[in-house]
Amino acid sequence: MAIRIGILGYGNLGKGVECAVKHNPDMELAAVFTRRDPASLTILTEGAKVYRAADAPEKKDEIDVMILCGGSATDLPWQTPDMARYFNVVDSFDTHARISEHFEAVDKAARESGHVGIISVGWDPGMFSLNRLYANGILPGGKDYTFWGKGVSQGHSDAIRRIDGVKDARQYTIPVDRALEAVRSGENPELTVREKHTRECFVVAEDGADLDKIRETIVNMPNYFSDYDTTVHFISEEELQRDHAGIPHGGFVICSGKTGWRDENKHVIEYSLKLDSNPEFTSSVLVAYARAAYRLNREGQSGCKSVFDIAPAYLSAMDGAELRKRLL
Amino acid sequence: MAIRIGILGYGNLGKGVECAVKHNPDMELAAVFTRRDPASLTILTEGAKVYRAADAPEKKDEIDVMILCGGSATDLPWQTPDMARYFNVVDSFDTHARISEHFEAVDKAARESGHVGIISVGWDPGMFSLNRLYANGILPGGKDYTFWGKGVSQGHSDAIRRIDGVKDARQYTIPVDRALEAVRSGENPELTVREKHTRECFVVAEDGADLDKIRETIVNMPNYFSDYDTTVHFISEEELQRDHAGIPHGGFVICSGKTGWRDENKHVIEYSLKLDSNPEFTSSVLVAYARAAYRLNREGQSGCKSVFDIAPAYLSAMDGAELRKRLL
Repeated sequence: MAIRIGILGYGNLGKGVECAVKHNPDMELAAVFTRRDPASLTILTEGAKVYRAADAPEKKDEIDVMILCGGSATDLPWQTPDMARYFNVVDSFDTHARISEHFEAVDKAARESGHVGIISVGWDPGMFSLNRLYANGILPGGKDYTFWGKGVSQGHSDAIRRIDGVKDARQYTIPVDRALEAVRSGENPELTVREKHTRECFVVAEDGADLDKIRETIVNMPNYFSDYDTTVHFISEEELQRDHAGIPHGGFVICSGKTGWRDENKHVIEYSLKLDSNPEFTSSVLVAYARAAYRLNREGQSGCKSVFDIAPAYLSAMDGAELRKRLL
Repeated sequence: MAIRIGILGYGNLGKGVECAVKHNPDMELAAVFTRRDPASLTILTEGAKVYRAADAPEKKDEIDVMILCGGSATDLPWQTPDMARYFNVVDSFDTHARISEHFEAVDKAARESGHVGIISVGWDPGMFSLNRLYANGILPGGKDYTFWGKGVSQGHSDAIRRIDGVKDARQYTIPVDRALEAVRSGENPELTVREKHTRECFVVAEDGADLDKIRETIVNMPNYFSDYDTTVHFISEEELQRDHAGIPHGGFVICSGKTGWRDENKHVIEYSLKLDSNPEFTSSVLVAYARAAYRLNREGQSGCKSVFDIAPAYLSAMDGAELRKRLL
């Protein structure tokens, strides 16, 4: 019988999960839970239900794993522990400074209810974290560098949109080639924020807006832009729609370390992603970990886990013998 | 108390393990076991013992994990199951066609004695296998490509050395840039053996040897060279020592797959290694998995496992909370 997936929150991430479930024959989308009016929501999957988010608890026997597709700022901190009372849960919580706290809250709820919760699943945190951990385990004393991009940063795009006179905007984070090359060479350079990434902004201004003022406001914005070399392009609404509609992203984790009795040999490990759609890739990782959550729970486990705690075999629909034969 | 490591076989791999243990403060090298005369062996680690391989069983209380550093062709198929009767074991068994059989043999011995055995640890099989598995779990229906090199192939170098008139040789396996680029683009090309790798040979001939004949013998050698574009350079013994003394290697695992309701978005995942010393990197992976074997066994587990079955957190000396804080 297929693993019955529930989706809580039907934005870009939720839609991505719906698509990812379609790519996994051992799974089926049972229901989407929304805070909007269910009657107003059209989903793609035939046969899947649409329920009110508030009704989730009473649907607990219809869902094997609930995938939480809300935001890390205000949704997941309470939603994931709350849903862990009724379901196995997977989320993509990415507020780094609050991961410990979130882990504890989900762990408590999941242990009490006998479910498995897997948090901070995606690519960073997620696949990038795994690569930092593997490299660090193999080459202790080595150094790891993470670069993001080229890709759209939703947070930075939103920050620009909040500026007076801005109608719409898209911000790309771009890793600096020179920094990438220095890291790849195994030199272990010390890099400032400015040396690692640049930021490129495509802005649609309102008619008659003061472009110079918008540009100044962007490049001097603390936290978001002031520590970076930032380029601002003003374009038309049509150009934005035509050339910047996608949500690509990606990045690099590069680790280097030394071996040998006198550290005489150098090694460089590099992991990179080039993603046409950030939310769809993140969703695909969520769905693979939903399989793991289901299986671990069937084995009698409960409590909160991160990608660090999950043996890779649990992600695949293949069994151990087949995996060893085909992929080892 | 430190994890006490034993090394069986003190060649390049065994020496690499010795160096890797030095880089891991939670471990210590307890003893090296050798089939040579122990008195003839000088090791680097102060305080570590050197014993006869045949005496290993009676030293079982001195060693927490035995790392097997013999070859896959004739040593590991009997050594790993044999040692699993007395120790937790880790090996780098890499004869792909015989992994299932080897897994079963180690599993039986390890279960009977209550130990953990981890087989086929290194980078391929090993880290490359993990990357194939993660990518396949996330993007089912995607395609994965593995390229090796640029690096020294010991097997191909040996095959050349066996030719009449050849004094010494070093063979490099080199991935073809055009093929790498085609795969990175997400085109999912069908590639022949010849299109993926070239082979470059540096050969020291004996005085008066027929160079043309040696070259012909190499490039037409079935299995090893005949399916590849192979270049042969004749060099002096001094040049070989000066320019080709190292054992570098590396390679690429590139996976691409699609997401979206109509497969409209493409994703490329790439993992690569650039290694100054193939045996020292492999050894470093073995040592990280020795930590996992020790911990799993302390938790009461037994039997054979591959890298697919080990949660990544077991590889690191850090505990769960520290890992989440520093690497997630």
